[in-house]
Amino acid sequence: MTPTEQFSLLEAFPTPADRPFVVEHVSEEFTSLCPVTGHPDFGSVTVRFVPRSPDAGGTCVELKSLKLYLQAFRNQGIYYEAVTNRIRDDLSRLMNPEWLLVKTDWRGRGGIRSIVRAAHGDVPHGWMA
Amino acid sequence: MTPTEQFSLLEAFPTPADRPFVVEHVSEEFTSLCPVTGHPDFGSVTVRFVPRSPDAGGTCVELKSLKLYLQAFRNQGIYYEAVTNRIRDDLSRLMNPEWLLVKTDWRGRGGIRSIVRAAHGDVPHGWMA
Amino acid sequence: MTPTEQFSLLEAFPTPADRPFVVEHVSEEFTSLCPVTGHPDFGSVTVRFVPRSPDAGGTCVELKSLKLYLQAFRNQGIYYEAVTNRIRDDLSRLMNPEWLLVKTDWRGRGGIRSIVRAAHGDVPHGWMA
Amino acid sequence: MTPTEQFSLLEAFPTPADRPFVVEHVSEEFTSLCPVTGHPDFGSVTVRFVPRSPDAGGTCVELKSLKLYLQAFRNQGIYYEAVTNRIRDDLSRLMNPEWLLVKTDWRGRGGIRSIVRAAHGDVPHGWMA
Amino acid sequence: MTPTEQFSLLEAFPTPADRPFVVEHVSEEFTSLCPVTGHPDFGSVTVRFVPRSPDAGGTCVELKSLKLYLQAFRNQGIYYEAVTNRIRDDLSRLMNPEWLLVKTDWRGRGGIRSIVRAAHGDVPHGWMA
Amino acid sequence: MTPTEQFSLLEAFPTPADRPFVVEHVSEEFTSLCPVTGHPDFGSVTVRFVPRSPDAGGTCVELKSLKLYLQAFRNQGIYYEAVTNRIRDDLSRLMNPEWLLVKTDWRGRGGIRSIVRAAHGDVPHGWMA
Amino acid sequence: MTPTEQFSLLEAFPTPADRPFVVEHVSEEFTSLCPVTGHPDFGSVTVRFVPRSPDAGGTCVELKSLKLYLQAFRNQGIYYEAVTNRIRDDLSRLMNPEWLLVKTDWRGRGGIRSIVRAAHGDVPHGWMA
Amino acid sequence: MTPTEQFSLLEAFPTPADRPFVVEHVSEEFTSLCPVTGHPDFGSVTVRFVPRSPDAGGTCVELKSLKLYLQAFRNQGIYYEAVTNRIRDDLSRLMNPEWLLVKTDWRGRGGIRSIVRAAHGDVPHGWMA
Amino acid sequence: MTPTEQFSLLEAFPTPADRPFVVEHVSEEFTSLCPVTGHPDFGSVTVRFVPRSPDAGGTCVELKSLKLYLQAFRNQGIYYEAVTNRIRDDLSRLMNPEWLLVKTDWRGRGGIRSIVRAAHGDVPHGWMA
Amino acid sequence: MTPTEQFSLLEAFPTPADRPFVVEHVSEEFTSLCPVTGHPDFGSVTVRFVPRSPDAGGTCVELKSLKLYLQAFRNQGIYYEAVTNRIRDDLSRLMNPEWLLVKTDWRGRGGIRSIVRAAHGDVPHGWMA
Repeated sequence: MTPTEQFSLLEAFPTPADRPFVVEHVSEEFTSLCPVTGHPDFGSVTVRFVPRSPDAGGTCVELKSLKLYLQAFRNQGIYYEAVTNRIRDDLSRLMNPEWLLVKTDWRGRGGIRSIVRAAHGDVPHGWMA
Repeated sequence: MTPTEQFSLLEAFPTPADRPFVVEHVSEEFTSLCPVTGHPDFGSVTVRFVPRSPDAGGTCVELKSLKLYLQAFRNQGIYYEAVTNRIRDDLSRLMNPEWLLVKTDWRGRGGIRSIVRAAHGDVPHGWMA
Repeated sequence: MTPTEQFSLLEAFPTPADRPFVVEHVSEEFTSLCPVTGHPDFGSVTVRFVPRSPDAGGTCVELKSLKLYLQAFRNQGIYYEAVTNRIRDDLSRLMNPEWLLVKTDWRGRGGIRSIVRAAHGDVPHGWMA
Repeated sequence: MTPTEQFSLLEAFPTPADRPFVVEHVSEEFTSLCPVTGHPDFGSVTVRFVPRSPDAGGTCVELKSLKLYLQAFRNQGIYYEAVTNRIRDDLSRLMNPEWLLVKTDWRGRGGIRSIVRAAHGDVPHGWMA
Repeated sequence: MTPTEQFSLLEAFPTPADRPFVVEHVSEEFTSLCPVTGHPDFGSVTVRFVPRSPDAGGTCVELKSLKLYLQAFRNQGIYYEAVTNRIRDDLSRLMNPEWLLVKTDWRGRGGIRSIVRAAHGDVPHGWMA
Repeated sequence: MTPTEQFSLLEAFPTPADRPFVVEHVSEEFTSLCPVTGHPDFGSVTVRFVPRSPDAGGTCVELKSLKLYLQAFRNQGIYYEAVTNRIRDDLSRLMNPEWLLVKTDWRGRGGIRSIVRAAHGDVPHGWMA
Repeated sequence: MTPTEQFSLLEAFPTPADRPFVVEHVSEEFTSLCPVTGHPDFGSVTVRFVPRSPDAGGTCVELKSLKLYLQAFRNQGIYYEAVTNRIRDDLSRLMNPEWLLVKTDWRGRGGIRSIVRAAHGDVPHGWMA
Repeated sequence: MTPTEQFSLLEAFPTPADRPFVVEHVSEEFTSLCPVTGHPDFGSVTVRFVPRSPDAGGTCVELKSLKLYLQAFRNQGIYYEAVTNRIRDDLSRLMNPEWLLVKTDWRGRGGIRSIVRAAHGDVPHGWMA
Repeated sequence: MTPTEQFSLLEAFPTPADRPFVVEHVSEEFTSLCPVTGHPDFGSVTVRFVPRSPDAGGTCVELKSLKLYLQAFRNQGIYYEAVTNRIRDDLSRLMNPEWLLVKTDWRGRGGIRSIVRAAHGDVPHGWMA
Repeated sequence: MTPTEQFSLLEAFPTPADRPFVVEHVSEEFTSLCPVTGHPDFGSVTVRFVPRSPDAGGTCVELKSLKLYLQAFRNQGIYYEAVTNRIRDDLSRLMNPEWLLVKTDWRGRGGIRSIVRAAHGDVPHGWMA
């Protein structure tokens, strides 16, 4: 599956309220492959964002489409940083939100576990954690 | 039950002190229905607010009425975002507080769990978490 | 026991240091009665404050007197908000501290648990939690 | 929905192995109604069993049908003990297993939480907990 | 309130099933008074039993009456061991169960916390913990 | 990959001691596919066994080969029960141990999580948990 | 303080019930001194026993006297094993219980922590843990 | 041991780096005596500081000397606030750090536990917790 | 260091009591090297035993000598099973205890963690866990 | 191995994205030697940084090389503060990041555990914890 095909799995719906709110989706069942060794990597993915208002054309990612999009990494060989940055890029392109944070938390290999966070827009202090 | 009837379940009493204080109610027994599949959703609801002073006509939501109001979502088909925004709208309309935060934390479906936060007024940094 | 009698249970001693410090007392064994149903309420009480310096006549609440004062709520019918505000009022009157926070955390009834915080003076950000 | 209709939601498939194994399903999203007050009860349901061998006509409950069966209690007014015994009776009738344990763990009302366990056949020591 | 009056708060209903099951009620909001100092004691009470079958005249304690019975210790001065043994005696007299265990777990005084267990009948190994 | 090919990934080495010992390997990074929906399942796998003595030709599974064997389920559509029974069958065939337990613990779908245990030989009480 | 003087701190009262019960006291604030280095050791002490019936002259250790007895180890240089055995000996001599278990759990030195258990009489399986 | 003798137990070594860093030492094995009752108090002590640079004559407290200094409180009768302020005074006198925080966390007596924090210099927000 | 030299690090002292007791030492700071890759392995080691009585020549391993003995594995390339069996053999040879259990719990490599237990004598049920 | 040789173990790759992100690597399997006693120290190391953008020549440390670099401390006698400052110096020299934090968390000796944090550049508030 090409990155373009994977992006096309994502769907969005118009922001359902005029007043601001924060949405957070957490998948604790994420897996991809190490591009060097081919061994599986396991981790969790957190997506946190404030959608634009419906007047400004704001949208929210649809939950089931997000699930299918994340599952599509299953058999891709891809680095931690690249996964994180690509989800950030795809979701900010899809929704054009006020701000968005993608955090990936990896179980690790060889005794080192890693956390990568990528931001879009001006993520307020306290929402990066 | 119409949204108007559900709103009418809520009762308030005058703010019982002149000096500011913060109130937080947490229901860990919330359930509604998915509007697409009809399957039940489970989660918790947190309501956090600073009431206006009694001189300014401030009120606090009465606890038992809040319980009945939240239970009235039990058999409604409604999205995560819509539940959160409606509780925020109903409670801020009822109490007109200094500020108010509604946070819903959902056990999730298909491996993704979600948290939605909706704010009224200027919620101070640190109270959004 | 009248509120005045209960207040008179409290004792204070002069602040034992010139340089600022923060004191926190936590009682996890607090109980009072619901003023409506007469059923017992259970919770914890946290008192956090910076005393004034001894030169400014600062004092600290004495620990055993605080215990007896909190125990005196045992058979009183009183709302969550009223307990919290009265402890705040009594302790700030007793000590006139730089600032003071009272937090009550209730086990709850009927599936909703509550947290109430009442402040005296300018509680610095981070000490409200 | 009558108990007979609810029972008919359950489906089973032939035991997929000749050698003994233990199956355990846990639903942490169970809700029914108190038959006296009509207020919702929340809890978890654990089903643990050893199926008979396929030669002896053994079967295992199908997971999705179990989910629909448990969801059918949602708007029934029914006591803790009755829920537990009925699930035990329905599942042991469906599968005729070597043994079966049903455990319900309720969040409780008014400060008391409850756990009810109902057994079918000779549940070995250690599997009742 | 005399022990006889307190016993009369308890109510029971006929065992609702022919096949054996285990019931467990846990109150984490128990308080009584130290008979020596008059200071409050706090703890939890667990009641675990197998009722006799309905044919044998078996009954189960009714939950709300159990709550009122336990609350009636609130202002009694009574030792840990005496509370535990009296609950065991009262409940075994009320229900005449197959077996019954009462466990009280006290937050303690002066750095020592205590757990007391009292049994009626032949409590199977594993149910005493 | 056929089951035969997958079995051939497993390697064993002679039991390195004459006196009995218990080995336990836990993989918390197991994933396979639901044979009906094709969606991924996630869980953990525990393998616990006592090898036969070296005099009796006893062997232990080699750790890296076990890892590759478990990873080979990644893109197979297979039921919970079938995974568990097949690992039990393959490992008991490989090692012919005194006894062996395979336990799979699944994160679940639609609000129900499952645990399956399959035994070979006479697993002593206490080792099944 | 000699061991005899320390023993004389202990007091007992007649067993307050005819039917058997289990008593457990836990002090998480125990300290003594290493007999070699003089450095303090910290740990917890658990005492668990079934008293003899009052007809058989059974007694229970009084809680405050137990506290003073345990505090008397504060400045004694004594090994882990010796503390544990002496508490077992002193308490079994004081109460002559059906059985008694003393467990000491030490925070440790140099990366090794220790647990010592000493029994009197026939401690039933499951109460040693 | 006089306070002066106790202070003389402390030793320091020159700050081993030019660039700023934060040091935190936590002793969870602290004990002193209540000055009123003579009963032991137990708690933990946290010391957190930024040393001055070596060019400015900065030093760090040596770990073993800190241990001996803290152990010297073992048989002193001293209030919570006094312990905390004295450690703060002694360590800031020893090291003259950029800033320093001393936090004592006490297991408590009679159902109330306490936390005392004393600061030297301008402790940045977030390091007081 | 040869195995013989490493064994000679161990010291024992005569069992300090006539009545039976159980000793348990836990080191959570164990490390050795993988004999294949040379990479470090990390884990914990638990040693649990009942010493023979002093009349029967019983001894207990001295704690500091045990620490030095365990540290001596630091730069040895050795398998999980071999470490466990060798500690069991060395300690049972040193002490000739009634029974002894050695349990090693490894953080693991490549997503699989392992636990190995080796027994000497007749370890009672419940002490193997 | 000299510090220069150890530094040469580290490798970096160009920052894989133009937009800012935060990377965090945690090794919970760190060990070195106490320079005074020669006894092993155990702890965890956290490295957190924002790399410069690829246009500015930014790089990220390669994970396997970081592992080998950290393992190279295994048999070095070195103080807590020196380890922390050297990792900070080596990694900021390697990557020249926007900012970098190194945190070491030590299990401790003799009842005191320690945490050391060393920063490079302007670490934003909230990332120091």
